[in-house]
Amino acid sequence: MKGYRWFQHAIRVRYSETDQMGVVYHTNYLNWFELGRTEMIRTLGYPYRLIEEKGLLLPVVEAEIKFKQPARYDEEIRIYTRVTSFSPIRLEFVYEIRRASEDELRIAEEGQLIGAPLGELLVNGATRHVWVNSSWKPTRLDKVAPELLQLLSGEQDME
Amino acid sequence: MKGYRWFQHAIRVRYSETDQMGVVYHTNYLNWFELGRTEMIRTLGYPYRLIEEKGLLLPVVEAEIKFKQPARYDEEIRIYTRVTSFSPIRLEFVYEIRRASEDELRIAEEGQLIGAPLGELLVNGATRHVWVNSSWKPTRLDKVAPELLQLLSGEQDME
Amino acid sequence: MKGYRWFQHAIRVRYSETDQMGVVYHTNYLNWFELGRTEMIRTLGYPYRLIEEKGLLLPVVEAEIKFKQPARYDEEIRIYTRVTSFSPIRLEFVYEIRRASEDELRIAEEGQLIGAPLGELLVNGATRHVWVNSSWKPTRLDKVAPELLQLLSGEQDME
Amino acid sequence: MKGYRWFQHAIRVRYSETDQMGVVYHTNYLNWFELGRTEMIRTLGYPYRLIEEKGLLLPVVEAEIKFKQPARYDEEIRIYTRVTSFSPIRLEFVYEIRRASEDELRIAEEGQLIGAPLGELLVNGATRHVWVNSSWKPTRLDKVAPELLQLLSGEQDME
Repeated sequence: MKGYRWFQHAIRVRYSETDQMGVVYHTNYLNWFELGRTEMIRTLGYPYRLIEEKGLLLPVVEAEIKFKQPARYDEEIRIYTRVTSFSPIRLEFVYEIRRASEDELRIAEEGQLIGAPLGELLVNGATRHVWVNSSWKPTRLDKVAPELLQLLSGEQDME
Repeated sequence: MKGYRWFQHAIRVRYSETDQMGVVYHTNYLNWFELGRTEMIRTLGYPYRLIEEKGLLLPVVEAEIKFKQPARYDEEIRIYTRVTSFSPIRLEFVYEIRRASEDELRIAEEGQLIGAPLGELLVNGATRHVWVNSSWKPTRLDKVAPELLQLLSGEQDME
Repeated sequence: MKGYRWFQHAIRVRYSETDQMGVVYHTNYLNWFELGRTEMIRTLGYPYRLIEEKGLLLPVVEAEIKFKQPARYDEEIRIYTRVTSFSPIRLEFVYEIRRASEDELRIAEEGQLIGAPLGELLVNGATRHVWVNSSWKPTRLDKVAPELLQLLSGEQDME
Repeated sequence: MKGYRWFQHAIRVRYSETDQMGVVYHTNYLNWFELGRTEMIRTLGYPYRLIEEKGLLLPVVEAEIKFKQPARYDEEIRIYTRVTSFSPIRLEFVYEIRRASEDELRIAEEGQLIGAPLGELLVNGATRHVWVNSSWKPTRLDKVAPELLQLLSGEQDME
């Protein structure tokens, strides 16, 4: 887990994201995973909007989530995202949702981070995706957007 | 207000619809208005899905909501919907969201109702819509789906 | 997988549950898992609302989801839920989300089912939970609601 | 409309906020109104979280929305919020949701603005609120949080 490059995206918990337990409704963490990976791809220089304009979709085929501590209304949250594996057909991400501490809030809020994510770990998980076309048929990324494949190749885990 | 035909649709409040005030998050009533009008149109014999398959969309252009009492998790709710005005270009609905009482729960749960809606009034409101095509250009309903216009003509207020 | 008792809950896909891919936004399946388990517990005779009124909460600690085919607006969906393991401290469910066929729509819509769920499999998954009190401290179900523990004991897999 | 003080809050449209029309699902604008007013109150120096910690709630009693143009995925949006009237019992806001232009994106993203809001107007509206205690009984703000009433008094329209 040392030396990996994580992308960091900062959000504040919205009232609409809470439920009557007084915490963030659990499915919102899966939304936040999506925010993390689309903001990561944007930082790489390829907004997900452009991907869809090329006729590509990147649906989730599997997701796993572990809920350790709840996030609460108005807290400042960091979404950490990292690519763990990719090919012209598949793409995998891991995520950590952390509550930012006062010290960490002074650190620049967006962009990449080398090393371990900061703050109290609330939720972590992973999603696996396949590239499909607008008819939901599997598609090879190198045929449609080789430049994006190239960008991702810099992000894979170097194991 | 007497003698009008209301359409009734029954739902139960979902946990995901609550917020940390311990009540239904207020924007969900606007979702419920949509459920009411699409279930009404279905009852008339014209599912909204078919409307979109014809290339028509019915976006909301104005909405008003009055919040009187909150709905809570697990309550049985009745959405009452009525057409108040329509033309080949426009369509207007009013809504009442009511908490069903035990007696009312014995009444058939779906379909039309002549006279005043039943149960404690929680929220009421109205939405106004225009017909547009898939490029969001205003469209005349009589050109694209005259049979739907015909069905609606039986529902307008007879003032 | 044969001979197990599944609980079945019927829903229709709401417009608010779609996204711009033209299918159900993926996090909603996790909402539907929750609907499945709370409706199952209601069928057992113990609405989740009563559980919270006793000061108990049942947060999700882990979830897994596999997305096979997307559900679409207006489709009739069956949520199948089964308890796979429980103790006074923990509770585990598995789920299948299936698109109902015309034949299956004639079958009674709610309640229990012995044997394999019906319809095209769209999504499946599992959630694991722990019982906590209103301060989020782990709690033993047999101390607070032994009658619910008794009800669940009839639902566990008989392997 | 000249010379009023508007508070500006910047967001980017999330994928989860879209629907199958390919635009932002209409109820989300009501969520954004809430974001606007809570961020405005934060800027005044009184986070809404603190208000709830004092046992006060500020439910919406009426809302009106006019939808002029849809917002779309990934667009940069500005939520403009202004207090139009208040008393120890009531509070009213108006809102404008605008799509930021490239020029406007160079302007500082948060905080107050004297004069007309910038960008293409997509949606506008208003909400009216009353102060209640945790039992939903009407409460006078000057009894519970006179310092907040003082802060708001600087924001009212000077007509």
